[in-house]
Amino acid sequence: MDLSTLSVGQYDFIANSFSFGFAVMAAATLFFWLSRSQVAPAYRLAITITGLVTAIAAYHYFQIMTSWEAAFSVTNGTIETTGYGYNQAYRYVDWLLTVPLLLVELILVMRLSRSETISQSVKLGGAAALMIILGYPGEVSEGGAVRFLFWVLSMIPFVYIVYTLVTGLKASIAKQPENVRGLINGASTLVIVSWLFYPIVFLFPLIGLTGGAAVTAVEVGYTIADITAKAVFGVVILTIAMRKSEAEAAGETANA
Amino acid sequence: MDLSTLSVGQYDFIANSFSFGFAVMAAATLFFWLSRSQVAPAYRLAITITGLVTAIAAYHYFQIMTSWEAAFSVTNGTIETTGYGYNQAYRYVDWLLTVPLLLVELILVMRLSRSETISQSVKLGGAAALMIILGYPGEVSEGGAVRFLFWVLSMIPFVYIVYTLVTGLKASIAKQPENVRGLINGASTLVIVSWLFYPIVFLFPLIGLTGGAAVTAVEVGYTIADITAKAVFGVVILTIAMRKSEAEAAGETANA
Repeated sequence: MDLSTLSVGQYDFIANSFSFGFAVMAAATLFFWLSRSQVAPAYRLAITITGLVTAIAAYHYFQIMTSWEAAFSVTNGTIETTGYGYNQAYRYVDWLLTVPLLLVELILVMRLSRSETISQSVKLGGAAALMIILGYPGEVSEGGAVRFLFWVLSMIPFVYIVYTLVTGLKASIAKQPENVRGLINGASTLVIVSWLFYPIVFLFPLIGLTGGAAVTAVEVGYTIADITAKAVFGVVILTIAMRKSEAEAAGETANA
Repeated sequence: MDLSTLSVGQYDFIANSFSFGFAVMAAATLFFWLSRSQVAPAYRLAITITGLVTAIAAYHYFQIMTSWEAAFSVTNGTIETTGYGYNQAYRYVDWLLTVPLLLVELILVMRLSRSETISQSVKLGGAAALMIILGYPGEVSEGGAVRFLFWVLSMIPFVYIVYTLVTGLKASIAKQPENVRGLINGASTLVIVSWLFYPIVFLFPLIGLTGGAAVTAVEVGYTIADITAKAVFGVVILTIAMRKSEAEAAGETANA
């Protein structure tokens, strides 16, 4: 990433978007964990993990923000790189932990059978971890060919996850109570759409998008994608858990 | 913002008002969340969000305070700017998150039907976010014409929110129990009055109010407006939630 062409305005905008990311993730964590008592015990594990994902992301956004500030010095309206590198790997460390957990959230809130929960979590979570691991060597490589090779490799688990969400979970979604079926479909779509941003951005340097504007698009874009995939997605998961808790409580009263 | 004409006394006064802002927001957060168990479950989400708003504000006041201290150096009673910019954007990042949530608080404590809660939250919350987003380019612009243009654009959602609070919610307010109707009206008025401060201050540079005294008026004024709109408003929301919880508990006992 070529950081030398960044303007003060671009630097500030990116720094503010990192601070925004941190604030959203930290606030979302508190919100999810404070709301945990409002869902039935069967859904609390899903909400615990939902908050865990945003908590891990909050930590990494704080580190990203600090690393960004250390990489530049802005004095009297002039920007210079300090020579300290901006550590992009924090994003990968974050994703390696949070991306498998995001899929586990979705599986848990569906409340499948124990064996199905475990097998789906292992399959989808494992594929997600593999996807991140395969992306990293491409991200830190200098050459375009290496970057493209690992992009292709990383897309294999990505496509597998999308395929499973679209087709494999369909049978399970059909078994969900009617009042949340639309929301669960929405959550799967949110995963697919927000995740599509990442492989597209990954290709930017290959198609010649560099310089200050590209850096701004990438960093702000990743931040928006992360907020959508983790905090907004978490709100959908919490809503599903609340509605299912209500419906099940009403069902028990009706049966009593 | 011209910071070079600030006196040591003005610098200190602003720094102390930021510290005051942080302390109030952090204390308010703890107060709201500790009081959450004292309202009926139906109102807990409103109180969770009330505390979330002040928590987000506390974080940003801490960042504002740090940025302010980094922008100046006071030694032997002499003040100098360090060359590091004072980051005004923290206020916008804060507002982008908290202003929509403040309106959601008010809607939630009214306990409308689910569909009305969602539609009002989307309409008012969306308008609030738009209002902040449209204000930002004006705030960071150098020219007066650009500042004025974005002031006008930002005032469109502002006027829409005020109009909705005054007229659109009136029918819903009329349906509220009598013991809280006055308080809910008070909360709407508090939103409108405390929010009026922001567009007025935004125009200060256009009407030639600059220099140390203007900076002090803006920064201290924003802090007072934020405390009123978030912490004082939150206390009103908590009071409404407590009264409604009591009234509903009494109603259930009477019906039993």
